Amino acid sequence: MSNSLFGPLSGTARVDTVLDDAAWIAALLEVELALSAVAAEQGAVDPDDADGVERAVAAVAGLDPAALAAESVEGGNPVIPLVKRLKAAAARIQPGAERAVHPGATSQDVLDTALVLLTRRAGHRIVEDLTACADAAAALAAAHRDTPCAARTLGQQALPTTFGLVAATWCTGLDRARVRLGALLDALPVQFGGAAGTLAASHPHGPAVADALAARLGLAAQGVPWHTERTRIGELAGALGVAAGACAKPATDVVLLSATELGEVSEAAPGDSSSMPHKRNPAAAVTARGSARRAPGLVATLLANADHEFQRAAGAWHAEWGTLTELLRVTAGAAARLRVCLSGLQVHPDAMARTLALAAGAQGAGSGHAAELVDRVLAGRPG
Amino acid sequence: MSNSLFGPLSGTARVDTVLDDAAWIAALLEVELALSAVAAEQGAVDPDDADGVERAVAAVAGLDPAALAAESVEGGNPVIPLVKRLKAAAARIQPGAERAVHPGATSQDVLDTALVLLTRRAGHRIVEDLTACADAAAALAAAHRDTPCAARTLGQQALPTTFGLVAATWCTGLDRARVRLGALLDALPVQFGGAAGTLAASHPHGPAVADALAARLGLAAQGVPWHTERTRIGELAGALGVAAGACAKPATDVVLLSATELGEVSEAAPGDSSSMPHKRNPAAAVTARGSARRAPGLVATLLANADHEFQRAAGAWHAEWGTLTELLRVTAGAAARLRVCLSGLQVHPDAMARTLALAAGAQGAGSGHAAELVDRVLAGRPG
Amino acid sequence: MSNSLFGPLSGTARVDTVLDDAAWIAALLEVELALSAVAAEQGAVDPDDADGVERAVAAVAGLDPAALAAESVEGGNPVIPLVKRLKAAAARIQPGAERAVHPGATSQDVLDTALVLLTRRAGHRIVEDLTACADAAAALAAAHRDTPCAARTLGQQALPTTFGLVAATWCTGLDRARVRLGALLDALPVQFGGAAGTLAASHPHGPAVADALAARLGLAAQGVPWHTERTRIGELAGALGVAAGACAKPATDVVLLSATELGEVSEAAPGDSSSMPHKRNPAAAVTARGSARRAPGLVATLLANADHEFQRAAGAWHAEWGTLTELLRVTAGAAARLRVCLSGLQVHPDAMARTLALAAGAQGAGSGHAAELVDRVLAGRPG
Amino acid sequence: MSNSLFGPLSGTARVDTVLDDAAWIAALLEVELALSAVAAEQGAVDPDDADGVERAVAAVAGLDPAALAAESVEGGNPVIPLVKRLKAAAARIQPGAERAVHPGATSQDVLDTALVLLTRRAGHRIVEDLTACADAAAALAAAHRDTPCAARTLGQQALPTTFGLVAATWCTGLDRARVRLGALLDALPVQFGGAAGTLAASHPHGPAVADALAARLGLAAQGVPWHTERTRIGELAGALGVAAGACAKPATDVVLLSATELGEVSEAAPGDSSSMPHKRNPAAAVTARGSARRAPGLVATLLANADHEFQRAAGAWHAEWGTLTELLRVTAGAAARLRVCLSGLQVHPDAMARTLALAAGAQGAGSGHAAELVDRVLAGRPG
Repeated sequence: MSNSLFGPLSGTARVDTVLDDAAWIAALLEVELALSAVAAEQGAVDPDDADGVERAVAAVAGLDPAALAAESVEGGNPVIPLVKRLKAAAARIQPGAERAVHPGATSQDVLDTALVLLTRRAGHRIVEDLTACADAAAALAAAHRDTPCAARTLGQQALPTTFGLVAATWCTGLDRARVRLGALLDALPVQFGGAAGTLAASHPHGPAVADALAARLGLAAQGVPWHTERTRIGELAGALGVAAGACAKPATDVVLLSATELGEVSEAAPGDSSSMPHKRNPAAAVTARGSARRAPGLVATLLANADHEFQRAAGAWHAEWGTLTELLRVTAGAAARLRVCLSGLQVHPDAMARTLALAAGAQGAGSGHAAELVDRVLAGRPG
Repeated sequence: MSNSLFGPLSGTARVDTVLDDAAWIAALLEVELALSAVAAEQGAVDPDDADGVERAVAAVAGLDPAALAAESVEGGNPVIPLVKRLKAAAARIQPGAERAVHPGATSQDVLDTALVLLTRRAGHRIVEDLTACADAAAALAAAHRDTPCAARTLGQQALPTTFGLVAATWCTGLDRARVRLGALLDALPVQFGGAAGTLAASHPHGPAVADALAARLGLAAQGVPWHTERTRIGELAGALGVAAGACAKPATDVVLLSATELGEVSEAAPGDSSSMPHKRNPAAAVTARGSARRAPGLVATLLANADHEFQRAAGAWHAEWGTLTELLRVTAGAAARLRVCLSGLQVHPDAMARTLALAAGAQGAGSGHAAELVDRVLAGRPG
Repeated sequence: MSNSLFGPLSGTARVDTVLDDAAWIAALLEVELALSAVAAEQGAVDPDDADGVERAVAAVAGLDPAALAAESVEGGNPVIPLVKRLKAAAARIQPGAERAVHPGATSQDVLDTALVLLTRRAGHRIVEDLTACADAAAALAAAHRDTPCAARTLGQQALPTTFGLVAATWCTGLDRARVRLGALLDALPVQFGGAAGTLAASHPHGPAVADALAARLGLAAQGVPWHTERTRIGELAGALGVAAGACAKPATDVVLLSATELGEVSEAAPGDSSSMPHKRNPAAAVTARGSARRAPGLVATLLANADHEFQRAAGAWHAEWGTLTELLRVTAGAAARLRVCLSGLQVHPDAMARTLALAAGAQGAGSGHAAELVDRVLAGRPG
Repeated sequence: MSNSLFGPLSGTARVDTVLDDAAWIAALLEVELALSAVAAEQGAVDPDDADGVERAVAAVAGLDPAALAAESVEGGNPVIPLVKRLKAAAARIQPGAERAVHPGATSQDVLDTALVLLTRRAGHRIVEDLTACADAAAALAAAHRDTPCAARTLGQQALPTTFGLVAATWCTGLDRARVRLGALLDALPVQFGGAAGTLAASHPHGPAVADALAARLGLAAQGVPWHTERTRIGELAGALGVAAGACAKPATDVVLLSATELGEVSEAAPGDSSSMPHKRNPAAAVTARGSARRAPGLVATLLANADHEFQRAAGAWHAEWGTLTELLRVTAGAAARLRVCLSGLQVHPDAMARTLALAAGAQGAGSGHAAELVDRVLAGRPG
């Protein structure tokens, strides 16, 4: 949400500090600083000038985001005025140092790389919460490996299963989602291509500058510039959408199993009501669902903006910034709230036995290989 | 975007002040205040108590959003702790007045009605910008009623048209979008149903309280509570998505007509580049497209969350808050940036004549009834 | 779905016969025939030639869709080869009549107008089913105006309501959706602009030809060509998405209320199971949900394709054909299956009383103004 | 599209024969046949009975899809009536053989596994076309490694690049998309869990039956049933959406570079027009875009349906069938049409030189490391 009032309850606040204005400006400057340094290493700029850039970066670090935002309007991105400020500061602090600012780079190089840095930081928090969710589900599966409960298909009681298998199935989805997301985060590369994506304005060893920049920032090498080749953004969007869905499934089950008529599980700290003191709402599961349901539409937006025409898209690129960060926020919200939901979820075997007794047709049948399947899941969990 | 650094350039900042934390808290309190007042009028609460509520509202008005946000986590929405604070303030300021706080209401009544108030305020700014865009398009159509330019189909020059007809077509889409959106905004109703949507806990004349509340807030009457009947939200989402599309079309044409090889139009204040001083980027059109392209996915999210199960949805409702406000922001951004693009757009008839001369097949043909069609549009514009 | 095996169970087959190949070809020929006729009336072509076209249309009417499809690949739409066939047939049947084929038109004029004809036919079936759904909901509301049942918020029992009010709320959403959709269908206009949207190649009275064509086809007048102004498509998409959502809400409630543990309602003909003879699945509600959940993404696709660049979009136009027809199919499926679900839905007041007794906190409270609200809905239904 | 008239031109017909009714019924029977066979191997059913099932499958193979579709309505899926027919045929052909039909399985086991088989077949065709597209792009990159052309950013000429680098960038996206999609297709597992996902009704060695079934069908093992754990479906959807986007990028560039004013490339067989014989439309690129633009909304639908509640979803599962097959169709269409577009694409270095001469600011600069980057791409292509 575009404000913080709903952030804590929706869990989206989980990543706000790594995606806010200060984080953006710090990341943009981190990229400019690293670029000047590696350009000096590669002999593309004078090392003394690069030292001046380091001092200039420190000088502009405290700038007012609102002022930079206002200066960004004309050119359509914040890197243009940031570079102007950086060059001015460098020239003031150490005349000539401005020559080492933004060497061989274009706005998109800096903005894409900064977005990658922010995405990785927010993404790792999501992976951390997804892992905690999967661990909590695994613990529930182990604890209730043999606890009978009704399997329900199309809303109707079918045959018995065990709550352990229900939780183990949650675990498999959460594990799969966190592993894929983590792998994509680790493979996020630097972006460096210059004005035309040809590394034209940079040092004779332009590609070497790009690879050195990646190494310095701890990012993957790009191979070639991807300024208009956005499959990585699409893959990341897909993985975040899948992660949100992996959170939605257990959250939905918890809401349904917490129903007054079932009462088979309850959250450790159920929510209250402004009008009904007797209510015990599964507030964490509810808000996890609320955040997870916001992800698919954002994934579609990123995929629909994959067609970056020519050598810099006139809109499709700009649409990515707010959409990817919002997708990171809602996915983080789903994972953060589900973590609260599953950690210390109270399971009520007596209630499970009671509801199971309702469906005559479901009687006389055991839970088949449920326990064996739980063991399979727990034994096969990815690291 | 979840921060302000990109707001001015994407135009989304256009509505931030009417959708931010302060605006939310003010709207929530506006609803509570009006509710106490009409409840007193209807004899549901004591008028003296209602007066105390007015003073309590003033007392809590300055509360810290972050504190309220933290208190909102347990219950899953900010109305619960706000009502607690309001009752405490009322009891302190005028013992007994707490009896007139939140009479017969549930959290969703207050939150939905506040969201309606915010939506109407942000929506009117969008309509205002859409109207300015349509007026600018109409002015261009009138000024270039007879200016020949190439009609292009599938990217290829076809037959001649006039720039006036091109601009007139932009105008028709913008006018249609603003009229529909404005009509929906005017029809937005109050929400008031109580804990179960039955107006149970309220005065014997509950429906009368609901209608009086609508009247006091300047909203439409609800007929019956719509806490789980979200077609209005869906219709609003559709109208915002259509408005974004109506902005995307002219913005896309401006980007294409501004191409170096065409040069048929140029923005009044083209953007610069961090690496290429010769560039003249149609920055307003580019960022209008960037914002407009973010709308469709958000519309899908709202439509996919229409199935509010039972008498209060466990997630679908919560997904609306951030999505609708984000949809308002990106649509506002598209309209605000397009307004900048079209206001004072420079048209170059000489360039249009030059490109028109390129396609032999397009020669010898006139622009048909283009001028007549322009007149139809200008004469038939909605008020 | 792209085949008929799933059509009957998902309800999408409800409109297949008005959207299939034969319907498309018939509609395309209907437009060409009407165009030749009105062109003759307006003096744009020779009446005798127009008579020849009528015979030519009859001659080609039985063409093989697969053959036409193959011929459509080169040009990218089926109108191009259809016009070639029509001209050849006209020349063969009545030499010279080919002069009256496709007068002043371009492919998009014929394809858009045919799509409008198909949309209106499929749309009216949807409105018919939505009306039947709303009537069934109204009947349930009247029959159970005073039947107490538990209102559930966030999955928890809150206070009592009546099943009548639950059904009345379904009715309001369905009524709103059908009224809006019906109004949009009635306003669908003809498309006629010629190669460049200027009515260039047509008679001196081109706009008159367009208006006469609309009148003859029973469509609304276009005002000006809308070949690149797609707000109407977006509005239609939004209305279909809202209609699908209006069906999803009651379908979801029926699935939940049919749960083994609640058993408050049951479908007249519940489905069976391939493995569990005791199951009683709410199959109509389930499949209504299955179709309704497919609509939002399709709406987003149509809205994302609103930016028809220049005077004929190179892709955005082509994306509409399959998406709009698929959206019509899934919305029709949701309405058709919900109609089966609600018609003769069995309500079990005894079960409602039993579950209501479970929640101590919900006791002692009446259903407030539920009955009065039901009366409001039934008395205020749109015609 | 739900009919074949538009299939060939949109390329979606590329996979129709592997996704149509006949393919579905064949796949469903393939699964039932394999299940009876492995159940016999595992000692779960009598081998003689299993032989009877093989004959029964042959007997029902020619059934009328329309009849099966009609019988599917009551239960909500086609497996229920298919199993009835199969058991009847088995009992008739070899009394007692019906005991070996559908052993330990539930409808979803057979339908999910059949969907996997169809997806793999359609998916491999998409991978084949993506590979051909990437190879064509690579060939263009090699042939024009040193052909100068204008790099355009935000629609404006920037600095020079080479067409080789433009094509090499297309290649990287197409290669990445095909590799990911291929890997997911190879990992698609069997689905086998029985009525409750516990393998309850099957042989003591149920999990062994599941693994043997996977081996016999050439599918990956499932580990545990994934009937409500849909991350695999979401990952597949994401990969298809990314593939569509990887096709949209070059298709968009081809449309723009084919513009009358640029004329830098042209398709081998440009399309004609129903009204303008001089037109040379890039019809393959246009229709590739038309199909690609339909993918993102379908991806969102699949991701939004990830929350399969309980042990069989009441709608979310049903929404997958038509959406996944439609997503396969439009992605196949994008790849098939792009293959036509890029194979034999005509490149016009003279036109590239002409447009490059238009932008003074772009002069005097070389194409930097473009050639080196092309070599990097060609040398690093995945197998």
